[in-house]
Amino acid sequence: MAVDRVKAGLSAVEARDRMANGALSATEYAKACLDTCAALDGDIQAFEWLDPAFVMRQAELCDAHRRSGRSIGPLHGVPVALKDIIDTRGIPTGNGTVLDAGRVPERDAAIVSQLRAAGAIILGKTVTTELAYLHPGRTRNPVNPAHTPGGSSSGSAAAVAAGMAPLAVGTQTGGSVIRPASFCGVTGFLPSAGSIARTGILAQSPTLDRVGVFARSVEDAAMLADALFGHDDLDRATAPAPHPRLHAVASTNAPVRPMFAFVRTPYWHKADEACQLAMEELAEHLGEGCFEAGLPDVFGEAASVRERINLAEMSKCYHRYVRDGSEQLSQRLCEALDRGGKVLAHDYIAALDWPDYLYAALGEIFQRCDAIITPAAPGPAPMGLESTGDSVFNAIWTLCGTPVITLPLFSDEDGMPMGVQLVGPRGGDARLLRTARWLVKHLETDGTGD
Amino acid sequence: MAVDRVKAGLSAVEARDRMANGALSATEYAKACLDTCAALDGDIQAFEWLDPAFVMRQAELCDAHRRSGRSIGPLHGVPVALKDIIDTRGIPTGNGTVLDAGRVPERDAAIVSQLRAAGAIILGKTVTTELAYLHPGRTRNPVNPAHTPGGSSSGSAAAVAAGMAPLAVGTQTGGSVIRPASFCGVTGFLPSAGSIARTGILAQSPTLDRVGVFARSVEDAAMLADALFGHDDLDRATAPAPHPRLHAVASTNAPVRPMFAFVRTPYWHKADEACQLAMEELAEHLGEGCFEAGLPDVFGEAASVRERINLAEMSKCYHRYVRDGSEQLSQRLCEALDRGGKVLAHDYIAALDWPDYLYAALGEIFQRCDAIITPAAPGPAPMGLESTGDSVFNAIWTLCGTPVITLPLFSDEDGMPMGVQLVGPRGGDARLLRTARWLVKHLETDGTGD
Repeated sequence: MAVDRVKAGLSAVEARDRMANGALSATEYAKACLDTCAALDGDIQAFEWLDPAFVMRQAELCDAHRRSGRSIGPLHGVPVALKDIIDTRGIPTGNGTVLDAGRVPERDAAIVSQLRAAGAIILGKTVTTELAYLHPGRTRNPVNPAHTPGGSSSGSAAAVAAGMAPLAVGTQTGGSVIRPASFCGVTGFLPSAGSIARTGILAQSPTLDRVGVFARSVEDAAMLADALFGHDDLDRATAPAPHPRLHAVASTNAPVRPMFAFVRTPYWHKADEACQLAMEELAEHLGEGCFEAGLPDVFGEAASVRERINLAEMSKCYHRYVRDGSEQLSQRLCEALDRGGKVLAHDYIAALDWPDYLYAALGEIFQRCDAIITPAAPGPAPMGLESTGDSVFNAIWTLCGTPVITLPLFSDEDGMPMGVQLVGPRGGDARLLRTARWLVKHLETDGTGD
Repeated sequence: MAVDRVKAGLSAVEARDRMANGALSATEYAKACLDTCAALDGDIQAFEWLDPAFVMRQAELCDAHRRSGRSIGPLHGVPVALKDIIDTRGIPTGNGTVLDAGRVPERDAAIVSQLRAAGAIILGKTVTTELAYLHPGRTRNPVNPAHTPGGSSSGSAAAVAAGMAPLAVGTQTGGSVIRPASFCGVTGFLPSAGSIARTGILAQSPTLDRVGVFARSVEDAAMLADALFGHDDLDRATAPAPHPRLHAVASTNAPVRPMFAFVRTPYWHKADEACQLAMEELAEHLGEGCFEAGLPDVFGEAASVRERINLAEMSKCYHRYVRDGSEQLSQRLCEALDRGGKVLAHDYIAALDWPDYLYAALGEIFQRCDAIITPAAPGPAPMGLESTGDSVFNAIWTLCGTPVITLPLFSDEDGMPMGVQLVGPRGGDARLLRTARWLVKHLETDGTGD
């Protein structure tokens, strides 16, 4: 099958712009994406559900809409893949467990309504780990199918990395956006907690669950996130406040050269040699634009505190799965639910105080820099599909609710990608994206990023 | 000692108005209140801390301020008594435990700053039960000192009932405003959850803790609550939104005769005969202005769900008291903390879903009425000071976060007061006060209220 690699390889922003001004039709672009899926997804298995006819029907409606002269949305004609824990009306949403096989939601998740209103095309549903926890799905890493794509947003990361989808949506409770993005070599952006409504998305741990995006560039990630930000009455973490113009700000040039803080974190010893070396080289390369900052020892508790919240809330949220068919759940999940069920309320409530304590301790660093740089994962994607890898380098930032982005700046000797994670202060999403774009361009210009 | 009963007996609104227009000086009024305290508090023991010189100094400053021609606050010269778990800068705040004896806060609670800014006089600190839980303080019921004043805001209720303070502030986690107000025969108003910031007030159970007011009339309660409503960044339950003009609305006449729903609640069998009879007579007297509404059986769980949240959060919040001196805590509190420490996180998290579930089930009733009427307590204040009484009739409304007000409309054969509790929908505070005022006036006019 001949894939139109030019069209499929366009950035999402370029494709959107061409479709908006009529240089490219939504059907042409959708067909290019579908052709890539047909060529590659047999090996990669990123999609849980994909109906080419449904995609083409949406694309035809987009074209007809445009031809009618009506105004078009900011994602007009752009296909977006959705992790299969995000409810889609009339489209199966299986949450990665046979217990929800055949489940067809009657309502769209809040962000799906927003995407449809923005003119996006729902490309398909992507493979998730079991109930967005650790037991892997069948997706392989597009860079090397012998390696895990990471999880839990495995299919979303792989679909974008393989060029099957220009954009995809995932979620993170531990490291489920940043880790697979790093492993698959794409940009993964997780906005500040409370930016994107989770209504209609499988709740695992409401204190921690966040929606994030996968893209092939910072600008593309910003464009998609722009359409997802918003308030929903049913998600109390979101506030009815104006949200930043992410893509507009990210596309501007920083007024001065950004300053970075290199943070090893108390988990540095868990990073492999290739990762440590790459981070140190990056910090050195940035020279006076980077200083090293240590974190107090107390940050070493972040991973266990985050896990305590995660497991306690998961044991409550997944109660019905245990009740209805615990024998159909993986042993790993059962053990986690069992541990979560034993957490004491007063330990859980005490854990909820940690995010603000830790975040306050980051204040001094954020006053002196535009972004923290730190590993996205302990190293490249591990060999094998049994484990989705370790999220220990995501724990602090997930717990603190800060926006994070991983950029595919490194690879190891075997060509497996490794991401650099940039962290900004809560609410500083637009500036974080602008800083990330500066870093990508700076390293491209120097040619020393890889 | 000759007490100026005319001045001490003024309503807070009248006193405020007279002081505002110069017909009464703040020093005259403060002296009348202090004289009442001196005459009565030896028996009643409502105050934990009272410094007449400090009160007079504030009153003199009020008078000087007014004489200087500067604008005066909405509580200009009005003395307000504060429950001794509300932090006051430079004034001992003992939280009802010897473990905090001699504790002098460096900062005012948010509402204390608001009261000072409104021109109020801090009259003194009132007796609380031990850490605002169930172990009684030394206060006696002003109506009959052989009876409990109720708790935990024992001193605030008693001070207002005895005429020692025109206004007082308390807090409620179970029934700690409504119950003592009912027992002492005063008006107790607990605004909607999130209306008043708790910053600087002893936290027992942040999900449930609320600030409420004691007064001798609905109008007085509204005037005080007006000064307390507000947003504080450090109390996330409060929102930066405009708040209702309580006193202004409460002082208007209802456009049509209010409709009441008489709700016995699943706890009706716990009400004594005098209470049941009084409520039924009231409902009958209101005739077509009242219908009876049943609550689904599930509301019978409210008391245990509320208690689960209370105890779990208390075991976390009071951790330092257990650590620093559990042998100084009452056996009752130790047992409760022990039970709270055993609550499992997933049961606690599940309990947090109940307020919205139950509140949604009240929607149908609130669509058909202006306010629910229901007992404020199972009956009049019990004999003896060992127990502060039963808060079972407060559990549903405390849990649901609805505004409630108790009106001293009944008394038993021995003259012990019994309150009628009015409940409105969340955020309907101003209308609830207006409805409450209508009811008081209606019964006064008919002469059948007692």
